[in-house]
Amino acid sequence: MPIRALVFDAYGTLFDVHSVIDLCEQLYPGKGEKLSLVWRAKQLEYTWLRSLMAEYEDFQRITEMALRYACKSLGQPCDTEVRDTLMNAYLRLAPYPEAKGALGRLSGMPLAILSNGSPGMLNPVVKNNGLEDTFAHVISVDEVKIYKPSPRVYELAPKKLGVPKEAIGFVSSNYWDAVGAKAFGFQVFWINRTGAVPDELGRSPEAILNSLAELAALVGR
Amino acid sequence: MPIRALVFDAYGTLFDVHSVIDLCEQLYPGKGEKLSLVWRAKQLEYTWLRSLMAEYEDFQRITEMALRYACKSLGQPCDTEVRDTLMNAYLRLAPYPEAKGALGRLSGMPLAILSNGSPGMLNPVVKNNGLEDTFAHVISVDEVKIYKPSPRVYELAPKKLGVPKEAIGFVSSNYWDAVGAKAFGFQVFWINRTGAVPDELGRSPEAILNSLAELAALVGR
Repeated sequence: MPIRALVFDAYGTLFDVHSVIDLCEQLYPGKGEKLSLVWRAKQLEYTWLRSLMAEYEDFQRITEMALRYACKSLGQPCDTEVRDTLMNAYLRLAPYPEAKGALGRLSGMPLAILSNGSPGMLNPVVKNNGLEDTFAHVISVDEVKIYKPSPRVYELAPKKLGVPKEAIGFVSSNYWDAVGAKAFGFQVFWINRTGAVPDELGRSPEAILNSLAELAALVGR
Repeated sequence: MPIRALVFDAYGTLFDVHSVIDLCEQLYPGKGEKLSLVWRAKQLEYTWLRSLMAEYEDFQRITEMALRYACKSLGQPCDTEVRDTLMNAYLRLAPYPEAKGALGRLSGMPLAILSNGSPGMLNPVVKNNGLEDTFAHVISVDEVKIYKPSPRVYELAPKKLGVPKEAIGFVSSNYWDAVGAKAFGFQVFWINRTGAVPDELGRSPEAILNSLAELAALVGR
C-alpha cells in the first residue's frame, strides 16, 4: 500500500542526543561517556518496567530518576543544579545534520512525531528548532500513560492523522521501536547511522536506511 | 500481617548463574565476561519488550535469541553446538552455597518458585538439585504468557498457594523484580549479595538481606 503519512520517533532519530553526552563529559570529566551510557540504558529500562508494572511516570521524571541512578552507580554527586543543566539540554537538542533537508523534501505529506517524551520536553525542542510548522502532530505517549513499544502508543498515530496504519511509514533509529511499530502494523524504516547490530526480536523493518536523506526517494518524492 | 508463605525468584536468587559465565569464558576466551553481560542484559530486555508488544515467546527461546544477539554484537560465531552447551548449563545451575540450609530452616512454611523460566528449564534445575520436595509449587510465567514485572505474573502465586498476597513474602535478588512484586502487594525481601545500587523505581522492599540465610529469622523461624 502506498505511504500516505510519515511518523517519526524523536530522540536519536530526528534529534541528536550527542550534545547531552558532551555535557556529561564536561560535568563529569573522564566519566561522561560511561555516565551517559548508563543513563540512557536506565531511562529506557525504566520506561519498560513501569509500563509493565502499570506505574506510569512521565518521561521527564523517568529521565531524572535514571540520571540519579547513573550518578549513584558511578559514585558521583548529582545535585539539583547538575540535574537541571542536563535536563535543560534535552530542550535544546539539535536535529541531525540531514534532518531539516530531508523533512523539507517530504512537504505535502502529513508528518508527525510520536515519542516517549512528555509534552513539556517535546514542544520546546520542536519550537527551538523552528519545526512547529513541519509536523501536523507532535504526539506524546503521555496521552495513554504507557511507553513504547506498547501497541496503545502506536495506535495514537492513525487516530490523530486519520490515515490507516497500513498506509503509515514509521521512522526510528531505535531498532526495538521499529520492531514494535512493525508488530503494530506500520510500514517501518530503520535509520541505522552507526552500523548497529539489529536485535533478535523476530521481526524486521521494511528497509534499513543510513540516514533520513534516503527517505524521500523511498516514498516517491 | 504475618508471613504465611514464601515465594522465590529462581535465577540469581536461588540458583547461581555464575557457572554459565565461566562456560562463556571457556568458549570465548577473553570475551566471556563481556558476552555474558550482553547476553543477560538482552535476555531481560527481550522479556520486557515482547511483553509490552504482546508478542510472548518462552524463556528458552528468548534466552537463545539474546545469546545470538550477544555473539553477533561481539563479532563471534554462535553455532548450534555452542548454543546447546550454554543452554544446557541452565539446567544444571547450582544453588547458592547458603540456599539449601536456608530453605531447610523454613520447612513447614509453604514455599514456591515464581520464575520467568519456562517449565522445560525450571523443572530440570529443581530436580537436578534434589529440590522437588522443597517447593509446593514451581510456577512459570508461561501460564500467563507475559513476563515479570507484570502483575499478572505475581498474581499466580496467591492463586496457587491459596494465601492472600499481603501474607506472602517474595524473595528476589533482582531489584526490579522486587519492586514489581512490591507494586503488586507482596511483602518483599531483596537479596543484595553484591552490594548493588538499588534502581530508582519509586518503591522499596521491606528489607534488604545479604543472603538467603537471614530469611528464617525475619519470618520468625
